[in-house]
Amino acid sequence: MKKYQLMAPGPTPVPSEVLLAMAQPIIHHRTPQYEALFVEVRAGLKKLFQTSAEVVPLACSGTGAMEAAVVNTLSAGDAVAVVRAGKFGDRWLEIARAYGLDIIDLTAPFGHTVDAARLADALKTHPEVKAVLTQHSETSTGVLHDVRAYAAVTRQHDAILIVDAVSSLGIADLPMDAWGVDLVVAGSQKGLMLPPGIGFCALNEKAWRKTKTSTLPKYYFNLTDELKFVAKNEVRFTPAVSIIVGLREALRLLEAEGLANVFKRHDRLARATRAGAEALGLELFAKHTPSPALTAIRPPTGVDSEKIVAAYSQSHNITIAGGQGEMKGKLFRLGHMGYAAEFDTIVALSALEQVLADLGQPVDFGSSVRAAQKIFVEKS
Amino acid sequence: MKKYQLMAPGPTPVPSEVLLAMAQPIIHHRTPQYEALFVEVRAGLKKLFQTSAEVVPLACSGTGAMEAAVVNTLSAGDAVAVVRAGKFGDRWLEIARAYGLDIIDLTAPFGHTVDAARLADALKTHPEVKAVLTQHSETSTGVLHDVRAYAAVTRQHDAILIVDAVSSLGIADLPMDAWGVDLVVAGSQKGLMLPPGIGFCALNEKAWRKTKTSTLPKYYFNLTDELKFVAKNEVRFTPAVSIIVGLREALRLLEAEGLANVFKRHDRLARATRAGAEALGLELFAKHTPSPALTAIRPPTGVDSEKIVAAYSQSHNITIAGGQGEMKGKLFRLGHMGYAAEFDTIVALSALEQVLADLGQPVDFGSSVRAAQKIFVEKS
Repeated sequence: MKKYQLMAPGPTPVPSEVLLAMAQPIIHHRTPQYEALFVEVRAGLKKLFQTSAEVVPLACSGTGAMEAAVVNTLSAGDAVAVVRAGKFGDRWLEIARAYGLDIIDLTAPFGHTVDAARLADALKTHPEVKAVLTQHSETSTGVLHDVRAYAAVTRQHDAILIVDAVSSLGIADLPMDAWGVDLVVAGSQKGLMLPPGIGFCALNEKAWRKTKTSTLPKYYFNLTDELKFVAKNEVRFTPAVSIIVGLREALRLLEAEGLANVFKRHDRLARATRAGAEALGLELFAKHTPSPALTAIRPPTGVDSEKIVAAYSQSHNITIAGGQGEMKGKLFRLGHMGYAAEFDTIVALSALEQVLADLGQPVDFGSSVRAAQKIFVEKS
Repeated sequence: MKKYQLMAPGPTPVPSEVLLAMAQPIIHHRTPQYEALFVEVRAGLKKLFQTSAEVVPLACSGTGAMEAAVVNTLSAGDAVAVVRAGKFGDRWLEIARAYGLDIIDLTAPFGHTVDAARLADALKTHPEVKAVLTQHSETSTGVLHDVRAYAAVTRQHDAILIVDAVSSLGIADLPMDAWGVDLVVAGSQKGLMLPPGIGFCALNEKAWRKTKTSTLPKYYFNLTDELKFVAKNEVRFTPAVSIIVGLREALRLLEAEGLANVFKRHDRLARATRAGAEALGLELFAKHTPSPALTAIRPPTGVDSEKIVAAYSQSHNITIAGGQGEMKGKLFRLGHMGYAAEFDTIVALSALEQVLADLGQPVDFGSSVRAAQKIFVEKS
């Protein structure tokens, strides 16, 4: 028996409580039952996003919510500054191009970040910039961008800061209101421990003001229209009902753990994973603040990282992820977000030791686990 | 004990087999396991849509798929003919307006349909029309439009016929290839017996040709890009994995029943429901071919139909639907699509008898059930 383990950087495992909640007979979305469900979900989302603003759920993946953020706040020809240091930074660029925006491209090599000072310079040089687009956690490289500093910089200007928090919401601290992030985009399948299928957009007042002048065409993703329904605890179009039911359970689990503890847990899992990898002589891919959501690791010299991904799957029934695009073969990624706890990390590292040995690498068995254990027994 | 029964015109109940399949541990969408799942789903969808074309699934509701159909085949300023005789016809109009299309508005009063001859005239008078937008089953009124005739008319022109089959796919016969329908839009939560959260677009060659000249902006809903991934059994963005898992089960159930039998079942349920309502002296709302998906019924004179909907819910724990928009209070709708069988209809009608009696109406108890039973015992 090889127990199946999902340890990729999303989708993440779904707790049985949530799976079973979603397996209950489906309810209709224009009923008092759904309204009661949505009232609870609506309040829970505000806590999770750390905002007094409304969080608008949409039936789509995170990419749909990214597009919603753009088409609701901008107009064709508007200038946007794109922080781009990975595949999801590329996605902002592709969306901006598809909608005819004028792009100020702030790139950094994969594994690095864009310094807030560069963003500050760009916004001074280009006062016409209407929005800054960035990730919080760049899932393709495992780097955490300094959104707090980006927000401080952007606040000096008329531009809004739009943050893709798909792999950071409920994982890394992102106090939307306290930091002054104008628009946060998220998805259901990472920190929220749900199946994919719901995206979220949360807009503060500055961002809602931008929607009034935005002329990009939209219908399904029209957030102004969505807000009217959210405010009444109603739905505009048929929602992904079963995932909303699961969302209530997931929010209850996060609430019971406490958001501060949720962030601490992810930080410990990430530190333990990094320590374990380094104990095996492996190099971390992130050359800047690593994300608590996942750890991107370079394979040993001469080893194609795709072989590591394949060995995890074939020998141990564990799904991890490789590198995307130009990073293919050059890194592998261990997810430790959402429904992930200490002994999952022990499993991931133990499997890594076996995988490396199978691939002919010298391995000091137990060394990665030892490094992780030292972090887990720290007084928090 | 009052067993909960969902008898609205969508979402429809989900079979336990499907709910439990979706409650299994979630799998990753870039793995051989997902590929094997998608291969089966892809083939099953083609059979269900009765086409050799690819069916593109999208993580969104049916409305998102309607928008995808428009933005992928048309350009701003293009003329479209909209067949409009209900709330979902209105939705085509709203999408067309949001994207700056020029609208030839072919309306009929709610409960009626638009004759194919009127469409033929419109296409002659307006040879510039690039697409005809219609529903197959108009869920708000319970009318089935004559899509076969619309297709025959549209085929004479350069225009494509785009059909919203959200509440007809797997319910009413719609042989896409045989009838020459160019683009079929559907959703997961009706005939497919799944939770809402997946939309579908199937395009024939004529429709794919239109995508090459379409300049409306799109990214998330870019079907040309989606097709490249579908053709390789891969996914472009994170799909609604759990619903795709359920989709495989649902397709297996429909395949086992046989599509011809599925259509016959819906036809019998619809005829029985209509006969039952008429046996109680009620008037059907549809003044034209009624949809096999649902039956819209006028309340007795002087009774607000919202009271009937409320009584179903409060006294019997059964969710049905009322009228939408200007039809509110003037009709109630019994769904009999998807996971619906003979004795569900018996339940719906028995409850209706009790509801009417509770509202002070004279009722010959058993009369609606007798009418339905006579249809169920017919040799098919």
